[in-house]
Amino acid sequence: MTSKNYKLLEVKLQKIADINYATALLHWDKETYMPKKAAALRSQQLSTLSELGHSLFTEKSTGILLNKLEKENLNETLEANVKRTKEDYDKMIKLPGSFVAESSMLSSKAFHAWIEARKKNDFKIFEDPLDKLISHKRKEADLLGFSDHPYDALLDLYEPGLTVSTLNRLFKNVREQLVPFVAELRSKKQIDTNFLFLKYPSDKQWNFGIDILKNIGYDFDAGRQDISEHPFTINFGSTDVRVTTRIDEYDFSNMTWSCIHEGGHALYEQGLPIDQYGLPCGSAASLSIHESQSRLWENMVGRGKNFWKFHYPKLQKIFPKNLSNISLDHFYKAINHIEPNYIRTEADELHYHFHVMIRYEIEKSIMEGLIKTSDLRDYWNARYKEYLNVDVPSDLEGILQDIHWSHGSFGYFPTYSLGSFYAAQFYEKAKADITNLEKQIESGNSSELLHWLRNNIHAHGRKYLPNELCKQVTGSELSLDPFMDYVKLKYSEIAI
Amino acid sequence: MTSKNYKLLEVKLQKIADINYATALLHWDKETYMPKKAAALRSQQLSTLSELGHSLFTEKSTGILLNKLEKENLNETLEANVKRTKEDYDKMIKLPGSFVAESSMLSSKAFHAWIEARKKNDFKIFEDPLDKLISHKRKEADLLGFSDHPYDALLDLYEPGLTVSTLNRLFKNVREQLVPFVAELRSKKQIDTNFLFLKYPSDKQWNFGIDILKNIGYDFDAGRQDISEHPFTINFGSTDVRVTTRIDEYDFSNMTWSCIHEGGHALYEQGLPIDQYGLPCGSAASLSIHESQSRLWENMVGRGKNFWKFHYPKLQKIFPKNLSNISLDHFYKAINHIEPNYIRTEADELHYHFHVMIRYEIEKSIMEGLIKTSDLRDYWNARYKEYLNVDVPSDLEGILQDIHWSHGSFGYFPTYSLGSFYAAQFYEKAKADITNLEKQIESGNSSELLHWLRNNIHAHGRKYLPNELCKQVTGSELSLDPFMDYVKLKYSEIAI
Repeated sequence: MTSKNYKLLEVKLQKIADINYATALLHWDKETYMPKKAAALRSQQLSTLSELGHSLFTEKSTGILLNKLEKENLNETLEANVKRTKEDYDKMIKLPGSFVAESSMLSSKAFHAWIEARKKNDFKIFEDPLDKLISHKRKEADLLGFSDHPYDALLDLYEPGLTVSTLNRLFKNVREQLVPFVAELRSKKQIDTNFLFLKYPSDKQWNFGIDILKNIGYDFDAGRQDISEHPFTINFGSTDVRVTTRIDEYDFSNMTWSCIHEGGHALYEQGLPIDQYGLPCGSAASLSIHESQSRLWENMVGRGKNFWKFHYPKLQKIFPKNLSNISLDHFYKAINHIEPNYIRTEADELHYHFHVMIRYEIEKSIMEGLIKTSDLRDYWNARYKEYLNVDVPSDLEGILQDIHWSHGSFGYFPTYSLGSFYAAQFYEKAKADITNLEKQIESGNSSELLHWLRNNIHAHGRKYLPNELCKQVTGSELSLDPFMDYVKLKYSEIAI
Repeated sequence: MTSKNYKLLEVKLQKIADINYATALLHWDKETYMPKKAAALRSQQLSTLSELGHSLFTEKSTGILLNKLEKENLNETLEANVKRTKEDYDKMIKLPGSFVAESSMLSSKAFHAWIEARKKNDFKIFEDPLDKLISHKRKEADLLGFSDHPYDALLDLYEPGLTVSTLNRLFKNVREQLVPFVAELRSKKQIDTNFLFLKYPSDKQWNFGIDILKNIGYDFDAGRQDISEHPFTINFGSTDVRVTTRIDEYDFSNMTWSCIHEGGHALYEQGLPIDQYGLPCGSAASLSIHESQSRLWENMVGRGKNFWKFHYPKLQKIFPKNLSNISLDHFYKAINHIEPNYIRTEADELHYHFHVMIRYEIEKSIMEGLIKTSDLRDYWNARYKEYLNVDVPSDLEGILQDIHWSHGSFGYFPTYSLGSFYAAQFYEKAKADITNLEKQIESGNSSELLHWLRNNIHAHGRKYLPNELCKQVTGSELSLDPFMDYVKLKYSEIAI
């Protein structure tokens, strides 16, 4: 049952979505086609539009409408839209305008200092503005409120319902199960991967990427792929979901898996219900559920042997000089080669979680006030030595590598690991539900998998909280077990 | 001298500009890169954003601020910004919200009927919604107010200060001078133009277009060229001014002069003062002054013999098969070949004004209530027979050819002709001011011309009304004489 008030809310949220998607287009254009002299005005245009969307949403009238609607008798979807919107609204109005303005000022300073620090390769330049931003973040946690841990307040901004207690449990298992497993793998003989770094001409890589996107079900009538410095997925409604990629002619993996990864994100967005445009039930459930979709396609499918049984012969035809002497088995092992590295974005699918764990431990301690900002670099380097056994060669390749902190994004990193763990748990269930799933993938057909994801995950949008969704889909709460089962099975075959 | 109130106005207008430029980007993207399934949501996003810009501007607080500022003592630029903004504001608030909503509803209906009528090639389908739109437009003229003629009220919306009295004078001269001149030209022998319709491969045309744009001074760091169905220029501030073109492999002229034409528009926008972003003095003076810039580059420069003395040898090298046997003189005559045609957008630079004159006469009569909508088709076809001596073969190629009326744009067409007349008058003055201008162009150097346009026209933005600007730049008001002098000199050499 709908109502007059509900209609008012819907119209308002859809108008805000129109504004936010226009903002997103300004951003997409900035990363793809914008001429360089436009940079300064573009920043101003982005800031005007995003403030506008924010201020329309946080108007008092929104709160009044939501309070009325909470008392109305609505159907499940409408009720979920009201509930999620109310949660968002309550979070946003907890921060006074002056506080938000200060956040924006402090992160702008921190961002510029981070850029400067990277240029000079010196964390000291970033230290003071970062320290101020951290104090501000601790205030933010107080304003938002929490029951157990101040970090919970920030985690909840990125991943509704996520807490330190959940993450402690998961990362304890990472430390106790994944860390020793990887150490054992590393003691085995590694395969030669040099052929992945021969010359793979851009245009052929590009065409191969487009083919792969089409193969996994990405709809080019409701999206497009372009080139940008860093690959990303962005959407302006589920009928226009765009991906970008980058191509390194001397690194085959770079384009291929970023293309499948972004394709996974895009399949999720293209699968959100269009009749829920601009409403929670038409939006992605959370960052980690989003990441579960990209990781599932990138790793479970795209780094799987069955996927390449179908695609590898085609690939060999495209790059005969590089690949005709490389067997499928060799190729498969090489693309799953693991090696510790100090750069998160270049990590393999196992070491990746070590990187996230380090950031998680640091952020948690920061929020507890246990680490002085001036000690962060040493703490960072020590953790890399401890978990990955690597010496961080410089600040640029160490504590300055990620942009997140300079934006004040504390609480974001854990969603990356959660995404992979959700992916494994979802994929385990999909395999149980779909007869011969791996056989289908081996024959180049992942449509039943996509259909399963559409029905079980995409169709719900934000109707459920991430942990509720996980329980509903898989029957149990998020656990590291499916991920460990997946890696053990896979890598027992790879590292012999 | 600036003031607190002025600052408030500036901030508001620049915020509105940010919104309007975001709207413009939604539009640019729609015409260039948007995937097809995005169409419906994009229309909604465009409508939300443009309403938002409009409603912010027409807020009562804008009027109050402007009233205060009119009494303040400001410098010339600031005063002009206040004056122009007040003129815009006063026009906009004359139309009640309900009237604007009805306009939008009626033109939406008319637009869809126009599309349908074009499909069926039958004006009758368009007739009724057009009739309603016309009645509405006559009401609009009453609401806006006028002293001499109802059409003046609509003309003023597109070209501030333009009146029927001015247009009657100009088009009387067109009828008395241009029409017989063209008739005389047509009686002479015409040159063979077939070589222009041989195959000119897309990529080579594209590269040639880019070279021409660079040559005339278009800054690719503050703009870019893309492909769209209909060429256009669009900007998001003077640091981001984009052009589009289309390429027909079997029509060399199509891309070449649309590229120079849009380049002329773009040079104007790139030359507007960036410190006046979002303010009248940072905006183009009017539609016809805009068109004067595109026509000056397209016709006076780009169809001139001196321009091709420099570029033609390069062109011959690019397309040796098509052009090595065609002399410069032959090429020059062919690109200036004139021939009556019933399609406005395909007209040569002389017949073009016959098309505009027909539309002007019809619109004027419509506003006087002298033609019944049901008689429009016959009236149209009779005028084409009378002025161009062509039989209009169908509605599609006749009265249904232009989109303007379906949008309710009555009063727009005359600005096209005015643009050419202004162009001739400006160019005559530029030649008088710049020693050896034609010699410079012959050597591929139009930078002094651009500099002259920047100083005399671009730098002022909307500081002056179009007729004031014309007087200031050329010393006299707009007249057909410079245009007639230009065509007589040029075509006396071409048609012998």
